[in-house]
Amino acid sequence: MAVELKDLTKADDNYSQWYNELVVKAGLAENSAVRGCMVIKPYGYAIWEKMQSVLDKMFKDTGHQNAYFPLFIPKSFFSREASHVEGFAKECAVVTHYRLKNDPEGKGVVVDPDARLEEELIVRPTSETIIWNTYKNWIQSYRDLPILCNQWANVVRWEMRTRLFLRTAEFLWQEGHTAHATREEAVAEAEKMVHVYEAFARDWMALPVIVGRKSPNERFAGAEDTYTIEALMQDGKALQSGTSHFLGQNFAKAFDVKYVDRDGKLEYVWASSWGVSTRLMGALIMSHSDNNGLVLPPKLAPVQVVMVPIYKGDDQLKVMTARLDAIAAELKAKGISVKVDDRDNVRSGFKFAEYELKGVPVRLALGPRDMENGTIELARRDTLTKEVVSQEGLAERIEALLDEIQHNIYEKARSFRDSMITRVDTWDEFVKTLDEKGGFISAHWDGTVETEVAIKEATKATIRCIPLDAEDEEGTCIFTGKPSHRRVLFARSY
Amino acid sequence: MAVELKDLTKADDNYSQWYNELVVKAGLAENSAVRGCMVIKPYGYAIWEKMQSVLDKMFKDTGHQNAYFPLFIPKSFFSREASHVEGFAKECAVVTHYRLKNDPEGKGVVVDPDARLEEELIVRPTSETIIWNTYKNWIQSYRDLPILCNQWANVVRWEMRTRLFLRTAEFLWQEGHTAHATREEAVAEAEKMVHVYEAFARDWMALPVIVGRKSPNERFAGAEDTYTIEALMQDGKALQSGTSHFLGQNFAKAFDVKYVDRDGKLEYVWASSWGVSTRLMGALIMSHSDNNGLVLPPKLAPVQVVMVPIYKGDDQLKVMTARLDAIAAELKAKGISVKVDDRDNVRSGFKFAEYELKGVPVRLALGPRDMENGTIELARRDTLTKEVVSQEGLAERIEALLDEIQHNIYEKARSFRDSMITRVDTWDEFVKTLDEKGGFISAHWDGTVETEVAIKEATKATIRCIPLDAEDEEGTCIFTGKPSHRRVLFARSY
Repeated sequence: MAVELKDLTKADDNYSQWYNELVVKAGLAENSAVRGCMVIKPYGYAIWEKMQSVLDKMFKDTGHQNAYFPLFIPKSFFSREASHVEGFAKECAVVTHYRLKNDPEGKGVVVDPDARLEEELIVRPTSETIIWNTYKNWIQSYRDLPILCNQWANVVRWEMRTRLFLRTAEFLWQEGHTAHATREEAVAEAEKMVHVYEAFARDWMALPVIVGRKSPNERFAGAEDTYTIEALMQDGKALQSGTSHFLGQNFAKAFDVKYVDRDGKLEYVWASSWGVSTRLMGALIMSHSDNNGLVLPPKLAPVQVVMVPIYKGDDQLKVMTARLDAIAAELKAKGISVKVDDRDNVRSGFKFAEYELKGVPVRLALGPRDMENGTIELARRDTLTKEVVSQEGLAERIEALLDEIQHNIYEKARSFRDSMITRVDTWDEFVKTLDEKGGFISAHWDGTVETEVAIKEATKATIRCIPLDAEDEEGTCIFTGKPSHRRVLFARSY
Repeated sequence: MAVELKDLTKADDNYSQWYNELVVKAGLAENSAVRGCMVIKPYGYAIWEKMQSVLDKMFKDTGHQNAYFPLFIPKSFFSREASHVEGFAKECAVVTHYRLKNDPEGKGVVVDPDARLEEELIVRPTSETIIWNTYKNWIQSYRDLPILCNQWANVVRWEMRTRLFLRTAEFLWQEGHTAHATREEAVAEAEKMVHVYEAFARDWMALPVIVGRKSPNERFAGAEDTYTIEALMQDGKALQSGTSHFLGQNFAKAFDVKYVDRDGKLEYVWASSWGVSTRLMGALIMSHSDNNGLVLPPKLAPVQVVMVPIYKGDDQLKVMTARLDAIAAELKAKGISVKVDDRDNVRSGFKFAEYELKGVPVRLALGPRDMENGTIELARRDTLTKEVVSQEGLAERIEALLDEIQHNIYEKARSFRDSMITRVDTWDEFVKTLDEKGGFISAHWDGTVETEVAIKEATKATIRCIPLDAEDEEGTCIFTGKPSHRRVLFARSY
């Protein structure tokens, strides 16, 4: 597949356009013929697969099992939990019929009006309802608890304005759904999983996130408490990157799920749910990339090292490719993924630009002088620097370099993020900071939904979270002047 | 989750009921609140995950990449390929609306009549159309070929009569979709993949299959040639377990996908597609299991060895569990998956029956006398035999035993299958064999669709395949007496 190497829009000129072009030109994803649904292309899917495999292991290491629940949910299920229906039974894909037939007028196929479903089916926007309807049959006694299930699935929310990875009608995700005997256990589970997400973002995506609680107005529909990881994009907007919910007994009550406890008493079951989605791809792209294209953390890069021979004529190409293959074998032996690009129909400058666009962390170029000297040119994608190094000890050098790049990308994102958290104590400062600097604003809030909504209407900024490590501090709400006991984080967000 | 240990229906008494009960009681899957859609439970999903991971590696080792295409397909796409529309645009889930709203009469939610889609969307029954519509944008020149993509996805076919795993409205599968510059390459790909399926069935599922071509009447809708792997279940019925299609230029023509070849000429692209689904779970269950429950090939068993202490009192339990944990550590070091069951609320007889039901290949039971003697009781699930063996060298013994069990299960299935292929030369023999013995019938057929259809109407038997290794042999059609040049395999099937 030919890569479009025309210049990317500069991120500074138009961040939103830069992002869209980058996703498409780097071969990550593209829009499809179906409104709001994307095609995830092989290179983008390879990154998602790496994320999946790491997360899946983290879930299993914390005692979870995978299962699979139906794509369709009967419409009536949504009405069972009062706040859930408000949040999710709105913009969704509704299946009303189960058959097509040949058009009597000979124009292709039409919906068969005789094949109308008695009750419409909703393509799952999230699966709490169908899963708790199932758990009802799985749970009788405390011995059946906890249930710690996760599912990898596609979900559909009929979003009006969509953007590749960040907000699409169909997206891929995992959703954990757990059932517990006690409130404490369910709360602990919700907290544990938000920390799993935090660790994944930090250690694999090189993404520093702030862990906190959502304010009541931003909670998941049906949750008693929502934990979130919030990341900061390079344009100063926040991106909610994963959430974990303590659901109380809301779904157990809606679907009548009770268990007999150790004392023989019948009690409602406690619940958590938690999820991350292909939105993480958007977070990954927007956190690290630059005007030359993607910058990928080595731990998630499908190709970690690319090698390009700089040659004249077939004979030279042959000798050089042999040398590069030998180096590649050494790298592979260390578990490093490598590609040798010996294409003869594009110039090496084209190849360089292509791998920069695709965010390959390390590039090696071997020229005729290198062949004589036993050297090779080594270029880093994160810093865009290059140096000529000895071929001797190259595998060890690259192994260490990949760690260094992973670390550097994280530190860069963290220092940017830290520089973009501004403590603000007045409304004027708040508005000015939002408009001129962006980022997170740490400010006092009076704790009411009314104020939260009023601030959002005035500025488009929302409370991203109440950080778990927020210290008690007396102050006054920037909007109402009423008393407040701790700062919360505001930002404009995706 | 409590396991139902009530006696299974005997397979000989009612094979179909035995199967349904087994799937549910062993905790593999169950019906959901949505007609025809199943819930795949953690134990069943763990087996499917193992299958997925092995197949995924086999696909990647043969040069394929994963990608993801939309769940929804515009209705008009189906009309583009004439025979495809006949096969697939029939019983399917049709999305007509994209919004729900509160019922004006206050009864939950209703479909918003204002939110009707301009063009209905079909939940994918298979993805050739949406994928070839996408490939159109990916392919310009021969340098863009081949494209070797696979996707792991859910699909929906609105089946009227469903059975867990074997035929469900929603099922999980993989679908490979490849694009090639030449007919030969596309045919070679379709053949390569059916052999990948054959090897997977043989080496991992312990399932002997017959590889062949489908007769024209049984081909995939839109294919020029369909390859199949056909397995034989213990009740003598065949199960189509995987197919691979040479699609010619049918979809390239339907979606106008052309490429410029080396000589600068514009040509239509050649295609293959191939898939296996959660139906393989049904094949696995029905091929090996018995009246006591599942029999799983060790290579796909989520738990390969289970250990049960036979104890009196907590002190004894403690000592024994410590001993079993030590043995478990040795087994795990060899990559063997182990579970130590120290539950104190069920008797060991209950545990034995539970693990037989769940098909755990090897069971170890440690009693007080074993503690004294340094022995342990070892039971095989496949033969239901047990013996007392020394704890010394146990890990090596079990490692070898798991291989032996894998081999034994395969050989048993193969010898049964071989005994159930009957060569038949007359119509009377054909009907008698079908009714009294079942299995595959190797017989001559005149090669016409009319005869194939007539035989199906008369006996419910279909041509399962024309084996790839079928020898040329002159004969006469069992139904019409017309000349035939090779035998084909008939059977009644799932």
